[in-house]
Amino acid sequence: MDYTYLLLLAIILLFTKLFGLVTEKIHMPQVVGALLAGIILGPSGFGVLESSDFLVKTAEIGVILIMFLAGIDTDLEEMKHTGLQAFIIAVMGVVVPMVLCGAVYFFFFEDQFTVYNLLKASFVGSVFSATSVGITVETLNEMGKLKSKTGTTLLSAALIDDILGIVVLSFLTGFSSGEGNPVLVLVKIGGFFLFTIVVGVVMMHFFRYVAQEHWHSRRVAVWALAFCLIMSYCAEEFFGVADITGAFFAGLIMCNVAKSRKFVAKKMAVVSYMLFSPVFFASVGMKTDLRVINGEILIFAVVLLLAAILSKIIGCSAAGRLTGMTTHESLVTGIGMVARGEVALMVAQKGINAGMINPAILPAVVLSVICCALLTPVLLELSISKGPDLA
Amino acid sequence: MDYTYLLLLAIILLFTKLFGLVTEKIHMPQVVGALLAGIILGPSGFGVLESSDFLVKTAEIGVILIMFLAGIDTDLEEMKHTGLQAFIIAVMGVVVPMVLCGAVYFFFFEDQFTVYNLLKASFVGSVFSATSVGITVETLNEMGKLKSKTGTTLLSAALIDDILGIVVLSFLTGFSSGEGNPVLVLVKIGGFFLFTIVVGVVMMHFFRYVAQEHWHSRRVAVWALAFCLIMSYCAEEFFGVADITGAFFAGLIMCNVAKSRKFVAKKMAVVSYMLFSPVFFASVGMKTDLRVINGEILIFAVVLLLAAILSKIIGCSAAGRLTGMTTHESLVTGIGMVARGEVALMVAQKGINAGMINPAILPAVVLSVICCALLTPVLLELSISKGPDLA
Repeated sequence: MDYTYLLLLAIILLFTKLFGLVTEKIHMPQVVGALLAGIILGPSGFGVLESSDFLVKTAEIGVILIMFLAGIDTDLEEMKHTGLQAFIIAVMGVVVPMVLCGAVYFFFFEDQFTVYNLLKASFVGSVFSATSVGITVETLNEMGKLKSKTGTTLLSAALIDDILGIVVLSFLTGFSSGEGNPVLVLVKIGGFFLFTIVVGVVMMHFFRYVAQEHWHSRRVAVWALAFCLIMSYCAEEFFGVADITGAFFAGLIMCNVAKSRKFVAKKMAVVSYMLFSPVFFASVGMKTDLRVINGEILIFAVVLLLAAILSKIIGCSAAGRLTGMTTHESLVTGIGMVARGEVALMVAQKGINAGMINPAILPAVVLSVICCALLTPVLLELSISKGPDLA
Repeated sequence: MDYTYLLLLAIILLFTKLFGLVTEKIHMPQVVGALLAGIILGPSGFGVLESSDFLVKTAEIGVILIMFLAGIDTDLEEMKHTGLQAFIIAVMGVVVPMVLCGAVYFFFFEDQFTVYNLLKASFVGSVFSATSVGITVETLNEMGKLKSKTGTTLLSAALIDDILGIVVLSFLTGFSSGEGNPVLVLVKIGGFFLFTIVVGVVMMHFFRYVAQEHWHSRRVAVWALAFCLIMSYCAEEFFGVADITGAFFAGLIMCNVAKSRKFVAKKMAVVSYMLFSPVFFASVGMKTDLRVINGEILIFAVVLLLAAILSKIIGCSAAGRLTGMTTHESLVTGIGMVARGEVALMVAQKGINAGMINPAILPAVVLSVICCALLTPVLLELSISKGPDLA
């Protein structure tokens, strides 16, 4: 048996945490540090890390855990309160970036309006539709604005945004699996959502039953993980939908098991941050081969970044203004939605796996995601402090 | 990408937990249930599970985590108190089972006194030298005898037993790596212990330093895991010593970082029980191919079981009696040491990997380990309740 994988795991853990702490120290998100660690250890850096079957599978479990946690952390009650306004902001926050960023990709790399090329452009666009709410939450929290009306609306919009993004991703992976027949794809996606609802209701009751007596027993957490893995598998194998979609809905189902929700989320988070998500971030960094960057890719990255920022600000601010926010509040909302993070990276990863995103443009995509993550707190602080106090 | 491994992981989690709960219900250790799940899902049962590179590596991490936890849970203070008596009991508890169980193996399967054959017999013997303290602790606890003088001595002896077992394993794996030159092997093993002491002192101070401010930060737990993986890798790659030896000493070093010890142990335990250790137990069960059992193997299993039980009782009781225990106390101590569990299974696993244990006898070994685990609580309760009250 070859034991090198133990050493590689240790190196990944050491460096992602070390770089994460450094970026945290200079008020950047830890994810950025973890990505940098991957880039530096990977082929564009010292070449210490090489991809292997084990690392790929471990990274995939990392993605699944992150999406499960995103699902279980969703506050459905909060979403009901802010309701329609947040929903409209979320829709605009998905559609506008998809169109604008997709258009930028199309302009740079495609010249024929075929369905296939449009699908590819949509994939790139969809990378930038998912908001990473963590960064925004932290900034709002530090400024004491998290519980303001704008803050809660912003939060709900970002969460609905995640759900919409996942639905869009389901369609894109469905269509890009190359089965040709769009009716079949639609039937399968419809089948997946039906399956999720039926399984969801059954499992919700099962877990509520188990949680009555054993809400903080290991069994609940272990079974929740098994449920999450099975949903991921079924989504991918039977319905041609991305595994992370299954994981997200498994989390969403578990967030309705009030008694065990916190306990399960905590255990899953430990498994995620102790091993699996560092491997995921490092593997994205590893795949970001900086050596392919040339003038064109660099210009593409800059334009893509601008599109990613402006599309969220324009789309979400317009939606906010139209649904009754003041100009200042709607601007803050739009800027708060600029943050991108793990989910964007996962969608990019899925796009590459499905052959819909050219690995050569991954560096540009990752750079844009990193820059969005870095710029959001700065822009948000600026916009909040320059205007009247938020209600 | 093939997503079947997600389903296999889910099946392993579901069934090991389910069977574990059933065995717990009928007052047997959960480990037995997990092993049964592996046997039933594996080739001797429904054949659902097949070994793969990913599962082998995941199981190995499970073993490493279990050994790290055994190390970090060691109470060095307690060991100092019970001191010499516990040490003598532990030595006898390692030597007598090794000799007796090794002799049983030799009698059944070898006929020439070569060094190689003696090494093979020692490997089988060493499987039965490590006590699984968990089962005994639980029984003593239920009977309110854990804090009795006999109870604490028994506990210390079982822990020292683990350390001695690990040292023996280091020598056995060293010699069985087939490098021929015994001096070189001794130098390497000596080198490993020197390395462990130097690295141990450095890392202990490093972790104590980090723990001053961040004793309950994620970073401490993540770095402890990285440290454990590196120690496992170095033990195996540079010194020809088993990786679990490295993991155990990493745990032993971390148990000296008082401030973070509990926090680290808790996080590592979550990672272990949520995913990795169920995969290990299932994989041992899977490898236990019941179809190879014939008359000879069955008789061997019965004799081996008797040797495993009697050797601990005779060895440890004699040591206890000679160091001043009453006959009753020494009998209880001997019976308490009969329990075998994870560590025995791991050593068996290592023996197979090193080519020193024939996979065909694994079912007999696993059956003996399971029976020891099942009989200990029964015998212990009987022996305690039949005699005068324990001091």
